[in-house]
Amino acid sequence: MNLLLKQIQHNKLLWLLAFVPVVFAVEKLQPEAHTLLFALSVLAIVPLAAMLSHATESVAAKTGDAVGGLLNATLGNLTELVIALTALRAGQFVLVKASVAGAIVTNTLFMLGVSLFLGGLKYHEQEFNRISARMQAGLLFLATVALLIPSAVAEADSVAGAAFTQKLSLGLSVLLIVAYALSMLFSLRTHRELFASAAHGEAGESLFPMGLALATLAGVTVLVAMVSHIFVESVQQAAETLGLSPAFVGFIVVAIVGAAAEMASAFAAARKNRLDMSVGIALGSASQIALFVAPALVLLSYVIAPSPMNLQFWPSAVVMMFIATMTAALVTNSGRSAWFVGVMLLMVYAIFAMTLYMLPPRVA
Amino acid sequence: MNLLLKQIQHNKLLWLLAFVPVVFAVEKLQPEAHTLLFALSVLAIVPLAAMLSHATESVAAKTGDAVGGLLNATLGNLTELVIALTALRAGQFVLVKASVAGAIVTNTLFMLGVSLFLGGLKYHEQEFNRISARMQAGLLFLATVALLIPSAVAEADSVAGAAFTQKLSLGLSVLLIVAYALSMLFSLRTHRELFASAAHGEAGESLFPMGLALATLAGVTVLVAMVSHIFVESVQQAAETLGLSPAFVGFIVVAIVGAAAEMASAFAAARKNRLDMSVGIALGSASQIALFVAPALVLLSYVIAPSPMNLQFWPSAVVMMFIATMTAALVTNSGRSAWFVGVMLLMVYAIFAMTLYMLPPRVA
Amino acid sequence: MNLLLKQIQHNKLLWLLAFVPVVFAVEKLQPEAHTLLFALSVLAIVPLAAMLSHATESVAAKTGDAVGGLLNATLGNLTELVIALTALRAGQFVLVKASVAGAIVTNTLFMLGVSLFLGGLKYHEQEFNRISARMQAGLLFLATVALLIPSAVAEADSVAGAAFTQKLSLGLSVLLIVAYALSMLFSLRTHRELFASAAHGEAGESLFPMGLALATLAGVTVLVAMVSHIFVESVQQAAETLGLSPAFVGFIVVAIVGAAAEMASAFAAARKNRLDMSVGIALGSASQIALFVAPALVLLSYVIAPSPMNLQFWPSAVVMMFIATMTAALVTNSGRSAWFVGVMLLMVYAIFAMTLYMLPPRVA
Repeated sequence: MNLLLKQIQHNKLLWLLAFVPVVFAVEKLQPEAHTLLFALSVLAIVPLAAMLSHATESVAAKTGDAVGGLLNATLGNLTELVIALTALRAGQFVLVKASVAGAIVTNTLFMLGVSLFLGGLKYHEQEFNRISARMQAGLLFLATVALLIPSAVAEADSVAGAAFTQKLSLGLSVLLIVAYALSMLFSLRTHRELFASAAHGEAGESLFPMGLALATLAGVTVLVAMVSHIFVESVQQAAETLGLSPAFVGFIVVAIVGAAAEMASAFAAARKNRLDMSVGIALGSASQIALFVAPALVLLSYVIAPSPMNLQFWPSAVVMMFIATMTAALVTNSGRSAWFVGVMLLMVYAIFAMTLYMLPPRVA
Repeated sequence: MNLLLKQIQHNKLLWLLAFVPVVFAVEKLQPEAHTLLFALSVLAIVPLAAMLSHATESVAAKTGDAVGGLLNATLGNLTELVIALTALRAGQFVLVKASVAGAIVTNTLFMLGVSLFLGGLKYHEQEFNRISARMQAGLLFLATVALLIPSAVAEADSVAGAAFTQKLSLGLSVLLIVAYALSMLFSLRTHRELFASAAHGEAGESLFPMGLALATLAGVTVLVAMVSHIFVESVQQAAETLGLSPAFVGFIVVAIVGAAAEMASAFAAARKNRLDMSVGIALGSASQIALFVAPALVLLSYVIAPSPMNLQFWPSAVVMMFIATMTAALVTNSGRSAWFVGVMLLMVYAIFAMTLYMLPPRVA
Repeated sequence: MNLLLKQIQHNKLLWLLAFVPVVFAVEKLQPEAHTLLFALSVLAIVPLAAMLSHATESVAAKTGDAVGGLLNATLGNLTELVIALTALRAGQFVLVKASVAGAIVTNTLFMLGVSLFLGGLKYHEQEFNRISARMQAGLLFLATVALLIPSAVAEADSVAGAAFTQKLSLGLSVLLIVAYALSMLFSLRTHRELFASAAHGEAGESLFPMGLALATLAGVTVLVAMVSHIFVESVQQAAETLGLSPAFVGFIVVAIVGAAAEMASAFAAARKNRLDMSVGIALGSASQIALFVAPALVLLSYVIAPSPMNLQFWPSAVVMMFIATMTAALVTNSGRSAWFVGVMLLMVYAIFAMTLYMLPPRVA
């Protein structure tokens, strides 16, 4: 408990934990205050995500590299997964897909962009491990191809019906999970030396002991699930009140909230001239969402959703994911960075955010 | 004759030659056994393609680099060309286009992917000549742009009619053949040193003497033409019986069958850590199909087909060719490989194959 | 005046200045001779563009790097800007957009392609500064994303109406101009050393003294505006007479005419083995059109055009801009060139030019 408090003192994000009880209280007392609940649940998810991420790393550090890496990788996007699962259960497929596409775009452009920009403000030029970055960009490219094919084919060949799209989505999900497993084997076992610097995580921070870490994992996951439930229930009406389209909320708001903890790590690493780690977190997180979270959601939708979900995204989401992936490939190709590289990534992100913000709600 | 037998003993693929008489016999006795004829003709084409490729190299080795290179390059995809010509004559344009697009995608993703995977299983990391690989990927990119423009414009500007597409296809075909001729001049004459390692071919194998080689070329071409005739005639009905779409058959089955001999060479080279050669065969073959075979088929269609063929592919084929080209460009950019790079290429190929397999037949 | 005459003797393009009075005379005497006026105005714009470019450099050389760079960059595409403004005022939005898209495609593919080809004819292999070229290609990529998003979204989500497209275009224009300003800060102030070799311009040529340079700037701008007026008025009818679509005229003719002076510099630099400069002029000019001229035209359209202009290009223009940008990114990635690299760029350009030439006029 002492360590937990120390952690809270150390990490200012965790003061936001105060919002967790507040959101539950407001939900009891004023269940109709959707916009307030939306804002409070956003504020409450951020510190929970940070704790989840810290606890995961503590467990990972104890269990040895192979199991630890697996845990770290599968639990790293737990917040996004829990939010998406809650939305999946409610049958809100547009929100689920928006949050998947948004996480890919936000991690690739915003998280990486701010990292390179902040790093570039401090250092004239920075270098990072090209090989590892290229592998991550390659994985992301692979996943993006899998996500865009159902939409491209359904768009292009209008005869292909819903049954085809559903069957294809199922098959692709299995393929992607196999690719994900093989990528783990590659990066954690056969060629771990290529990914060395990016995998180390926040060394130097005080880690939780095993018992506390596991208890935190369990407890916080339950809390995240409960807050996510409030979030998903309030988001639609709050979006309407605020004049935001579900696409904008899923793409931008949910994506930034869900990745808040990882962003804090990535930005801090960039300021310490450890760009390998920033690039690893940003692209690794994006490719994990694409290779593991998205297909897992499709498979789980057969069990927990009112009807099975497919992998067909709406066209502008496909265009954005594809451009984000290409941008990542172009940027990471040289292995060097300066502040303007960050600006370029952020500009592409701003173009997307502006488009989604202005898009008439019905479309999204 | 002795050498021919020795060659058969050396290369186990050639035992399949036994299927050549079988397919003719079955065609005489049971002309309606389409599925059987389809399977037998596939089995018979593979060893014939291997012989054709060996004879071509023997001739090329004798005639000096310039003529030899020209021969090697123009005859290298002879099997694909003969199959496509047979389909062209029958007016089966969907099959022709599917086999062209399929050869590009299969060579780029499957042949290269298996090569890198097999090589990577044996060697921890492999390197290859980036400059030559980039040039090949650039040629492939150029050809893909030419193949996608008619479809993109016809898709986008619906006013552009069939006459426009036909005229444009003719013009593009001439452009592509000029580009092909210039690329030969570049790689065989002015900058041959850049392509040195990839061009050597299966050095070390016993080559045919000139007379035998020419006789083999002539005789085997006739045999391939005859078996291809049976193949093209049976494929449509066999596909229906087996529940395969013509697109899947053209894209996957024909492409793999037609390239079987080259694949054997590419895989063997990768296992010997001669990735330059594997990359050269895979991408060189793909760009040759795109730059020479496809436009030659358009030009020939004016002479031998019931009506002229254009270069307008159906949209998902365009998307697949474009993604295959981009994947090749990304992968070859670094000049290094490990087993997972092969897996990524194969995964993209599996995504395409799965999509085509599931696509309702009418669409393709 | 002496210097001006010397300049005319030095630069053979300037003999074409004789066409300036001719075009005014013909316009007075035969205002209906559209095809003749079109041809004459093309011939008259070329030398004026060369003078404008030389005067701009002279001013830039005197005012110190920061202001000079700003001037050089903002006035560098003055000809294109004046032509586009004249068309904008006349409400000819198709011509304006075609000239913007055409300038991007022509500078990226034609100007760069001819430079690399001519340089390659003289030198077996040439190298250029990868870092600077990549930055330019990155800027161009950013701008292309901004230009393709409105069209992509409007294409994809048909609900998005004209009001959305207009609002989005306005927002994107502001974003692009901010990006342009930041890119200037980056290349002229914080990281000028990366761009050093490309920025120097035609060192060695005799520059105008300040007074003459400013007078030339003012006077020639007025002349360009007047000739552009004749050009824009005659181009539509001349195109009809010559059977050319407005898209072809805007994309190819206007783009080549407007960039004639820069092309002369880029080609000469390539022949002197100064590829850094050729690449800098070609890609820098393209990204400037995309990042500054295009958004400035949108903003100005609110003031001077009959109705506001948006950034929605027709689909084949978007495809072409995107492919041109990708081609530039692929080609500049290696930092090496040989004659065939130039041929590949020119082939892609020829594919586009042929497509536009054949496209039925109504579509464009």
